[in-house]
Amino acid sequence: MRLSRTFLPLLKETPKEAEIVSHRLMLRAGMIRQQSAGIYSWLPAGMRVLTNVANIVREEQNRAGAQEILMPTIQSADLWRESGRYDAYGAEMLRITDRHERDMLYGPTNEEMVTDIFRTHVRSYRAMPMNLYHIQWKFRDEVRPRFGVMRGREFLMKDAYSFDIDQAAAERAYHRMFVAYLRTFRRMGLTAIPMRADTGPIGGNLSHEFIILASTGESAVFCHKDMLDKPVPPADTDFMGDLAPIVDDWTSLYAATDEMHDEAAFAAIPKDKRVEARGIEIGHIFYFGTKYSAPMGAVVAGPDGTEVPVHMGSYGVGVSRLVGAIIEASHDDDGIIWPESVAPWQVGIVHMRPGDAACDEVVDRLERGLEASGRTVLVDDTDQRPGAKFAAMDLIGLPWQVIVGPRGVAAGEVELKNRATGERTTMGEAELMNRLASTAGATA
Amino acid sequence: MRLSRTFLPLLKETPKEAEIVSHRLMLRAGMIRQQSAGIYSWLPAGMRVLTNVANIVREEQNRAGAQEILMPTIQSADLWRESGRYDAYGAEMLRITDRHERDMLYGPTNEEMVTDIFRTHVRSYRAMPMNLYHIQWKFRDEVRPRFGVMRGREFLMKDAYSFDIDQAAAERAYHRMFVAYLRTFRRMGLTAIPMRADTGPIGGNLSHEFIILASTGESAVFCHKDMLDKPVPPADTDFMGDLAPIVDDWTSLYAATDEMHDEAAFAAIPKDKRVEARGIEIGHIFYFGTKYSAPMGAVVAGPDGTEVPVHMGSYGVGVSRLVGAIIEASHDDDGIIWPESVAPWQVGIVHMRPGDAACDEVVDRLERGLEASGRTVLVDDTDQRPGAKFAAMDLIGLPWQVIVGPRGVAAGEVELKNRATGERTTMGEAELMNRLASTAGATA
Repeated sequence: MRLSRTFLPLLKETPKEAEIVSHRLMLRAGMIRQQSAGIYSWLPAGMRVLTNVANIVREEQNRAGAQEILMPTIQSADLWRESGRYDAYGAEMLRITDRHERDMLYGPTNEEMVTDIFRTHVRSYRAMPMNLYHIQWKFRDEVRPRFGVMRGREFLMKDAYSFDIDQAAAERAYHRMFVAYLRTFRRMGLTAIPMRADTGPIGGNLSHEFIILASTGESAVFCHKDMLDKPVPPADTDFMGDLAPIVDDWTSLYAATDEMHDEAAFAAIPKDKRVEARGIEIGHIFYFGTKYSAPMGAVVAGPDGTEVPVHMGSYGVGVSRLVGAIIEASHDDDGIIWPESVAPWQVGIVHMRPGDAACDEVVDRLERGLEASGRTVLVDDTDQRPGAKFAAMDLIGLPWQVIVGPRGVAAGEVELKNRATGERTTMGEAELMNRLASTAGATA
Repeated sequence: MRLSRTFLPLLKETPKEAEIVSHRLMLRAGMIRQQSAGIYSWLPAGMRVLTNVANIVREEQNRAGAQEILMPTIQSADLWRESGRYDAYGAEMLRITDRHERDMLYGPTNEEMVTDIFRTHVRSYRAMPMNLYHIQWKFRDEVRPRFGVMRGREFLMKDAYSFDIDQAAAERAYHRMFVAYLRTFRRMGLTAIPMRADTGPIGGNLSHEFIILASTGESAVFCHKDMLDKPVPPADTDFMGDLAPIVDDWTSLYAATDEMHDEAAFAAIPKDKRVEARGIEIGHIFYFGTKYSAPMGAVVAGPDGTEVPVHMGSYGVGVSRLVGAIIEASHDDDGIIWPESVAPWQVGIVHMRPGDAACDEVVDRLERGLEASGRTVLVDDTDQRPGAKFAAMDLIGLPWQVIVGPRGVAAGEVELKNRATGERTTMGEAELMNRLASTAGATA
């Protein structure tokens, strides 16, 4: 792809309204544009990252046996009256009246609707375990939306809902999502720590928030230091097998948000292993039993023919929020540092002399070769000065940068820069292809 | 994928509320569930088709040089006041008041918002040609929504917007979308005919509706018979080259909707070449000049430094509507007949004796082999009777069906059925793999 034909409106100035670094960098790197308070358009570079993030979420949901559906954004108020939440939900719910004066709303979440789908079509325990998810825009009318896509009003969320015959089966469903989340976030280069969360009137210990550490985090968090470098389960994990040992291992060390913090338990950890930091919530999994299935009549016949309300759980990932969270976790003074797995383009080619026949030829060949090997490539073929081109590549944060200039080309060489380490190496074209092709797909 | 673990709620009864065949079949095949009037959830099979359709649209937009963005569903009324459409748009616009009493709306289309994005970031003619598109949910509050996803209230649409320095350049942008649409619809197995459409006060001839013929179509259409079997431009068409000859060729034969019909011109066609039918609109392309850019101040400096309002066009495809339209065009008494390119699964394996070790082994091997070759596969591993299994495969319309039973397996054979022709052929496993693998990707 050629920058000269790409809509990538970089800003020189730091936008005043942006309070945190991810918001600043997303605006400066031409990823988003605010349309109203807390409502954003995603420009091409932002859209590419959002798509990459959503695809990783989707792949890991599918791997764990969840099935993708798509529920609409606009819901009937009647469903929410059945669960009792229509009146209980506050001003954050965007309430709408249609032309026939029917009460509608823009869904802030989908427990009621998915329970309705289930009760309509499923009558027997044999259809379970079942986990239905969708990746859809939600709306929560925050009083004071801020921090860009981190706390927007219209936001993209993956929400999954599990249906099981009893609590033991629901626990297995919970474990599958727990493990899927570990893999999902790690694939985006994040160290997400599952922390016990409040279960409210449901009780039990089946509620975890997945938190990344960042100085701009919304809440204080506390955990054992060893949580920060635990390896996550591999891609060939058997999700139909027993995942309890993995979950037990991950929950054996102390990790809690402010809300659930236990000062005494934390003090029992060796001092050099105590981590106190701020955290950003990027996922939340929650078992809520028959909270919706009982009032809404989502019952199935068990093996003995008796009808029982199904046990449910819900599992959310903030997809649009993750784009901001990844930047919070991975940037420097020059701009964003994208992990390869979600980068808008994995390789940037800085074409130092567009129009120079020898350079053009090398750039064309590298672009075609890298794209053929499965890499996404952005070629800066503009007539900007070299310094501006280097700064742009660092600002938008492409993981690999290849510099092609006349002197190098005459010597049969190009330069490769690693955005994360800053390391620059001069090498021949063949070696470059070898290096970049050899790591393709390694992030999966 | 195993049917026993797939949420595919088939209906035996024909739903009474469904007036047209696509609506009936989508409900019976477990593709959608109505949540409110004109508002649907997409269940797994439906979601897979919707995704396939959207991806073909996306690939052809990208090929034609359009860039994907994503604008939000909720818009500020202020933008629409700038264009004068906020008051002009009738009751179909879903108007919303947020918690701060601001007037918002659920976007029925995005001319205003995309013009706002453009005017904010683009100042020079050198950024053009530019074409920005998104695939996003829209809402139009139809008085009487019907025909399932064909005329819903919440619907998925691809809308692209082109920006050019003058009318001649805008015409070239129009040609690119014209050719992209020919390719898009043909890849879905559709014969879409571009028909001149009303340009209203803009005038000129740069407005075409893309129509497929179907007895349930909403309007009468008239065209020259040769329009029905014209080959579409190939994948390697140079979209930056001159596409006028292709467009001229496609517009040289008579084709018009009721609205634009010219009885005299139609009568001049040889009698055996006149086609009178009913049609379904699946796309619409439209040049509207400076209609939005002038009032909204979207101006750029031309080569001589003079500021001029940009010339724009818009290009819509009804993505969710297409799922219904494809069924209207391709079904029989037994159910849907999916083209391979959009089928929820390309191959269905009817496992006649789950639990029989020899059959299990063949089914497992075929499933793995076909999936490795890039095919999507659904294995019916349920304990339904054979007749019910065959009927289900035909109802959900999988293009290729492989029957694996104990007698065949003992003889080293399986049976392959072509859903479209009904042809059944017995062959060895190796030959089957050869046949199905050899056509993979041929639809692209």
